[in-house]
Amino acid sequence: MNKYIAELVGTAILIILGCGSVALTNFGSSGPVGLVAIALAFGFAVVGLAYALGPISGCHLNPAVTIAAFSARRLPQSQLFGYIIAQFVGTTIGAGILAIILAGKLSGYDLAVAGLGQNGWGEGYLGEFSASAAFTVEIIGTFVLCYIVLLATRDEAHSKFAGMAIGLTVVVLLLAFINVSGASFNPARSFGPAVFVGGNALKQLPLFLAAPVIGGLLAGLAARRTTASLTAAA
Amino acid sequence: MNKYIAELVGTAILIILGCGSVALTNFGSSGPVGLVAIALAFGFAVVGLAYALGPISGCHLNPAVTIAAFSARRLPQSQLFGYIIAQFVGTTIGAGILAIILAGKLSGYDLAVAGLGQNGWGEGYLGEFSASAAFTVEIIGTFVLCYIVLLATRDEAHSKFAGMAIGLTVVVLLLAFINVSGASFNPARSFGPAVFVGGNALKQLPLFLAAPVIGGLLAGLAARRTTASLTAAA
Amino acid sequence: MNKYIAELVGTAILIILGCGSVALTNFGSSGPVGLVAIALAFGFAVVGLAYALGPISGCHLNPAVTIAAFSARRLPQSQLFGYIIAQFVGTTIGAGILAIILAGKLSGYDLAVAGLGQNGWGEGYLGEFSASAAFTVEIIGTFVLCYIVLLATRDEAHSKFAGMAIGLTVVVLLLAFINVSGASFNPARSFGPAVFVGGNALKQLPLFLAAPVIGGLLAGLAARRTTASLTAAA
Amino acid sequence: MNKYIAELVGTAILIILGCGSVALTNFGSSGPVGLVAIALAFGFAVVGLAYALGPISGCHLNPAVTIAAFSARRLPQSQLFGYIIAQFVGTTIGAGILAIILAGKLSGYDLAVAGLGQNGWGEGYLGEFSASAAFTVEIIGTFVLCYIVLLATRDEAHSKFAGMAIGLTVVVLLLAFINVSGASFNPARSFGPAVFVGGNALKQLPLFLAAPVIGGLLAGLAARRTTASLTAAA
Repeated sequence: MNKYIAELVGTAILIILGCGSVALTNFGSSGPVGLVAIALAFGFAVVGLAYALGPISGCHLNPAVTIAAFSARRLPQSQLFGYIIAQFVGTTIGAGILAIILAGKLSGYDLAVAGLGQNGWGEGYLGEFSASAAFTVEIIGTFVLCYIVLLATRDEAHSKFAGMAIGLTVVVLLLAFINVSGASFNPARSFGPAVFVGGNALKQLPLFLAAPVIGGLLAGLAARRTTASLTAAA
Repeated sequence: MNKYIAELVGTAILIILGCGSVALTNFGSSGPVGLVAIALAFGFAVVGLAYALGPISGCHLNPAVTIAAFSARRLPQSQLFGYIIAQFVGTTIGAGILAIILAGKLSGYDLAVAGLGQNGWGEGYLGEFSASAAFTVEIIGTFVLCYIVLLATRDEAHSKFAGMAIGLTVVVLLLAFINVSGASFNPARSFGPAVFVGGNALKQLPLFLAAPVIGGLLAGLAARRTTASLTAAA
Repeated sequence: MNKYIAELVGTAILIILGCGSVALTNFGSSGPVGLVAIALAFGFAVVGLAYALGPISGCHLNPAVTIAAFSARRLPQSQLFGYIIAQFVGTTIGAGILAIILAGKLSGYDLAVAGLGQNGWGEGYLGEFSASAAFTVEIIGTFVLCYIVLLATRDEAHSKFAGMAIGLTVVVLLLAFINVSGASFNPARSFGPAVFVGGNALKQLPLFLAAPVIGGLLAGLAARRTTASLTAAA
Repeated sequence: MNKYIAELVGTAILIILGCGSVALTNFGSSGPVGLVAIALAFGFAVVGLAYALGPISGCHLNPAVTIAAFSARRLPQSQLFGYIIAQFVGTTIGAGILAIILAGKLSGYDLAVAGLGQNGWGEGYLGEFSASAAFTVEIIGTFVLCYIVLLATRDEAHSKFAGMAIGLTVVVLLLAFINVSGASFNPARSFGPAVFVGGNALKQLPLFLAAPVIGGLLAGLAARRTTASLTAAA
């Protein structure tokens, strides 16, 4: 039960802090200035949470990571749905709390216009890329994230640094891909804000649910192969 | 005695460096550019101090963290007030030193106008949010900070990375919440600058004394539960 | 075989994320703002990959590092060419994937004009420095990188932090030298984008193949001397 | 002998990368944008060098740190002058190499005007602070730096993280104090660029030689007290 609560609390915090850095601080900013702030917010939040929640649940915070861990045979099937449900509930609560905070902006704040750091693509969304570019980027980014997660947490000795390595990887993934798709790589992270913002964020949600699952499954397979051959070599 | 001196020196340094990055370097800046600098200043100062003072006093630097540690039964009651007094004295000394440095600005510097990196909310303060938004954000931010502090320092093996994890969490908390309340999460950090700047900073101080205490107490309870169930499971 | 696949995948990811932060996110930016994002992207990618691939191949990701490791007698000659071929193939695949993503930009994207984060020098390239300045900077930067790599990975106890130390060194090398040469220090990193962009990037490629090899060889010699005298002293 | 070479090479690299990030990349920038890049360059260079040279010489890179280590009885007197001479020679070589690279700027570059990242104060220098503000800031900053260095490297267990803690402290010291004095805290770091730039940098050099020595001595005394009482308590 603890594991599911840890995932729920962790994903809520990830949305409040990560999407908060967009919605509360950088909503007016264009160009690369705000992007550094946003990338550091998501990545450093992962570092902080990894060392707090890692020993409890592994600190997945992401259904794609959970699916990758399952497909690499590192998570029992009995826990698969508990993790994923907790993550979706957590990001929805997190996005709701963020919406409440934003209601306190004196000049008013129209969620449907300015948003909650939701993901997207196409005309009017950051770098204006096509759906297929967003789809490609979400698969590649999730693959990179999950592959590094699975390899860096392979054994006890290395996993101590995994929180740092994974968090800084998240920073880079945002710095590279934010203009294309908003850099989600996490179905639950896209879900929470989309529920409250509606509009394009909700219409485009299926891509952000599907692509990371593909990326995570591919990473699980790739990591299993790598680990298998390492074990064989030992 | 050593512990109290460590907390006093540490909080003075936190104010000189953290608030210094606002008052000395970024006072003229608007938008997210300066915010990255300020967020890194507060967070990286915590990293540096954690590895220097952590073995002496635990490097709380924050009455809310001290109260959270007490409520999680990780600090004896006999030391509670010594820690908190040292922290308030430290930030007051730190703010005073910063005021002296600022007096050396050749073009003059009006503390009452430009300030010492004081916290606040409402019209004319950064993102212009309401008092209730600032109150909510200070409770949530302090909860996140103290919860991560208590979990990441739970046992010897993990606490080695705690300084990094906590410092980077501080960076994120500022990146997310600075526009709403100035991102204090620390009664002593709000107190020192307010004493010298006066005006709104002093009038709005009660919120910054109360909200972090609530957040810290909640985190203490939550961490105790998590730790208890972990111990029970072991 | 695993080692070569790790180097191939790792260098592909390095190009997609590092050059991606230039080509997808910061292509319109001038001045130091975008440079921080780009420097963090390359450096933090190295941190993430180091803890994932380090235990497999050492995570060189760079023919100059491989040559330095060989000249410091830390890599058998039998693996020298396998590593280097994998690295060149990897960066070419990475640059190709980046070109495919960029084709999805709705407003169109002319690779020959805007590029893939290719290296260069002279009129029209960032800070507009001479070829000899670029040559000097590529030798010095590669020397610093390889010297720190070889010393920081010298023994098991220190090598745990090597991923962090090397990645943050890469951040600095970009912050210091990007205006002069684009800060490659890596023949394979220059090769991949140049193949797709052509033009000046291809014409100026020989410098980026030669200078890092010189820097790496010098670092290998210097590190061997340092290590030898340390061993003698022990 | 090795120790002195390590200090010489290390300080040369510190100047080439740290001052390089000013002189090569951010010379035209004003405001806090360039300051983040410069602060990260100096601080991350210290991280990289700490894990490479720390096991050889302790990686002081700074006469003030060497004097602090001596006054805390952590360096034998016989090595004091060797360290300091190596550091001054290193920064002079580093500044010379930087001047050579800058000579390759196609549009020309007037060292006397644009500089090599030299320290200073007063009219026309960054935030325009008085000499006494610069003096105060250099003492405080060096005290903080050396105090954290001495405490964080106190015993083997903690010193593994010291490179990270000290490097990130350097980042903060620059973010807070760069506008007042250029944030040297290191007589050798001020010396090298001043020799080549001349003018104000040379006239104002005595402050940058004296203030850090005072800060370092104070830190040595403070750290000795702290360590003594810790040992007594054990």
